[in-house]
Amino acid sequence: MKEKISFMDGGVCAPKGFYAAGMFAGFKKSKKKDLSLVYSEKVCDAAAAYTTNKVKGATLKVTMDHLSDSRARAIITNSGYANTLAPNGVEIALRTCELTGAALGIDPRDVVVCSTGVIGVSPKIEPFEKNIPKLAKAVLDAADGADGGKHYGASYAAEGIMTTDTVKKEAAVEFKLGGKTCRIGAMAKGSGMINPNMATMLVFITTDVDISPRLLRNALKNDINHSLNQISIDGDTSTNDSVVLLANGMAGNKRLESFGEGFHVFAEALNMVTVKLARMIAKDGEGATKLIECRVESAPTDEVAMNIAKTVIRSDLVKTAIFGSDANWGRIMCAVGYAPGNFNTDNVEVVLSSSAGAVTVCDASFAVEFDEDVAKKVLGEDEIIITVNLHDGMADALAFGCDMTYEYVRINGMYRT
Amino acid sequence: MKEKISFMDGGVCAPKGFYAAGMFAGFKKSKKKDLSLVYSEKVCDAAAAYTTNKVKGATLKVTMDHLSDSRARAIITNSGYANTLAPNGVEIALRTCELTGAALGIDPRDVVVCSTGVIGVSPKIEPFEKNIPKLAKAVLDAADGADGGKHYGASYAAEGIMTTDTVKKEAAVEFKLGGKTCRIGAMAKGSGMINPNMATMLVFITTDVDISPRLLRNALKNDINHSLNQISIDGDTSTNDSVVLLANGMAGNKRLESFGEGFHVFAEALNMVTVKLARMIAKDGEGATKLIECRVESAPTDEVAMNIAKTVIRSDLVKTAIFGSDANWGRIMCAVGYAPGNFNTDNVEVVLSSSAGAVTVCDASFAVEFDEDVAKKVLGEDEIIITVNLHDGMADALAFGCDMTYEYVRINGMYRT
Repeated sequence: MKEKISFMDGGVCAPKGFYAAGMFAGFKKSKKKDLSLVYSEKVCDAAAAYTTNKVKGATLKVTMDHLSDSRARAIITNSGYANTLAPNGVEIALRTCELTGAALGIDPRDVVVCSTGVIGVSPKIEPFEKNIPKLAKAVLDAADGADGGKHYGASYAAEGIMTTDTVKKEAAVEFKLGGKTCRIGAMAKGSGMINPNMATMLVFITTDVDISPRLLRNALKNDINHSLNQISIDGDTSTNDSVVLLANGMAGNKRLESFGEGFHVFAEALNMVTVKLARMIAKDGEGATKLIECRVESAPTDEVAMNIAKTVIRSDLVKTAIFGSDANWGRIMCAVGYAPGNFNTDNVEVVLSSSAGAVTVCDASFAVEFDEDVAKKVLGEDEIIITVNLHDGMADALAFGCDMTYEYVRINGMYRT
Repeated sequence: MKEKISFMDGGVCAPKGFYAAGMFAGFKKSKKKDLSLVYSEKVCDAAAAYTTNKVKGATLKVTMDHLSDSRARAIITNSGYANTLAPNGVEIALRTCELTGAALGIDPRDVVVCSTGVIGVSPKIEPFEKNIPKLAKAVLDAADGADGGKHYGASYAAEGIMTTDTVKKEAAVEFKLGGKTCRIGAMAKGSGMINPNMATMLVFITTDVDISPRLLRNALKNDINHSLNQISIDGDTSTNDSVVLLANGMAGNKRLESFGEGFHVFAEALNMVTVKLARMIAKDGEGATKLIECRVESAPTDEVAMNIAKTVIRSDLVKTAIFGSDANWGRIMCAVGYAPGNFNTDNVEVVLSSSAGAVTVCDASFAVEFDEDVAKKVLGEDEIIITVNLHDGMADALAFGCDMTYEYVRINGMYRT
């Protein structure tokens, strides 16, 4: 099925009818872009997923309320400080939606509002008042045909949501549904759940596919369990994590209403986008020098496979060993052993691999003699795969993480003051 | 009750009838002490707790079998490499018990065997064969009255179980039961669950109190939930963690058989010893410069209080902030928010304190203005207390951790090769 789906440029603006813009509005000391807007010509069906943290950002509370009717038309996001645990937080978030609605000529309740940065700073309304009209003008102009800069808009918006990210994160794919060309686009920020002050993973996905809200929710929920929720950088679950998926139906396909072939193509395309973003987010983990992907094979259940994969990439001891290019596989087996769930640990095979080759380090749960020099070379690359085969079932899973470095400690020891 | 219990010297040899020794036997490249023996003149009632990791060391499997009758008389431990995931592991562990039993003239099934160090190295029997007789002679000579060196023996044994520990960890207390003087002694190794290769927390506790095995088990189980299990350095649960408590009854008190006053004094004394060790272990966390103690107050249940305390000291973001003396309290609130359990996060007070003073940084779950210079001074000390008051019940809890530093990354990135 995969050959029908191909990657393309354009990020959130790849699908028909979506426009975006980003600018510096005064939130970041660095004067980099810190305010982003995504806009759809038509009202969208919307699905979303939020942090499970009991402490939630004020913007999140407003967004959850606005998306309770499963429709939205714009996303406004500031970076630089998070609107979280501040006494005036909800008031500012509501006012941001009003400003955005007024500037775009849409219902303020159709605006999704997000925020990312240091927690506990009381936000000010002035930067929003001054700059939202400018952003709105940019996207409305683009929608009116002045769209030579459409892709720049997506790119600027992707920059405007970054905090400690070192690269902007965009992805888009193209595929056919009943002969009609459809697209899914996306942008993300965050280094997993690790950002300084847990300043959040944000993922915004757009599509021109016509799909019912029920199927949209189902697709997103299933998907993130196997992609974005399988990222871990340091296990600190943010107060503001949000994933929002907007579908405006402008591709003109026959509306997807049931779980047939069309839905599976859509789900597959969505997964290509979210896995790409998950790998980008993990690789850009704070201070990271290497992506670590854990592939668990032949586990008794999906849940066990997912638990093990995530537990391995979550282990600080595994992360530091990979940083040091040290094939210290005992740490991997230890993490496997404390992963939640019931499974057999007596017949585990562990293989370390990268573009430089592969080394089996553990077989039938016992040490295997291996060439340390080859292992060092394999682990010297910047994308490392740890394959754990349980020989105990049929379920597979992936998880995405990164190594732990001096730079991680520096960034997080020195961030705020 | 606490005034009746006082700390004393002597470690595991403080209680009557216990003798110990430690020496270099050839396991550590550093040539530091790496083989330890603890011996009781009389057979002891024994209680123990083990790692929950599904991958268990070979020595642990043998120890669990040997303690299935709740009696023991000696503990033999090597450090330098862990007997874990090696094909000949169980054979070597059994043979170690035989050698120890023969040298001491006791039943090999009354020997507890432990091991700590790098996982996956195949152990050799020769260092045990050559050196166990020497250790046995030392403890038997001491028991025969040549005990001028009794305390040195305890101290040598405490050194012999160290791996990346920078200080040896001993504690002992004295108290009265029905007019008889009783003692509890202990030694520990480990920086929580974080040791390189998860090479384990080991805690050995001795007492001359006469107490039934049922009460002994009960006391240990309750106690570690509030002391040793509340330590976290990096969350990597070892394959070899063990806590063993031996009671030889030589204090001559009326045997404790029920949960009365005497039992409570014993439990209190035990808690003083294990909390002291827990703080020593946390403070000696790999690369740590500071002890972090989290005190949760006024939580709805004990379990919630314990979860929150442990979640806060477990957060890499909290740990790096404390390393940087940065009063980044949003990270503390974030960790509170993702701690498991049901509780109200709307009325939380957070106070940072140390010997240099105290600063309230969050009140009623909102930011409080505070003097950054004072906060910097408070966090500049080497024992930091984070107090989280939920104003949502009657339960309190403690947890013990440490800061995360460059040195942690160095030690664990470079350990094995």
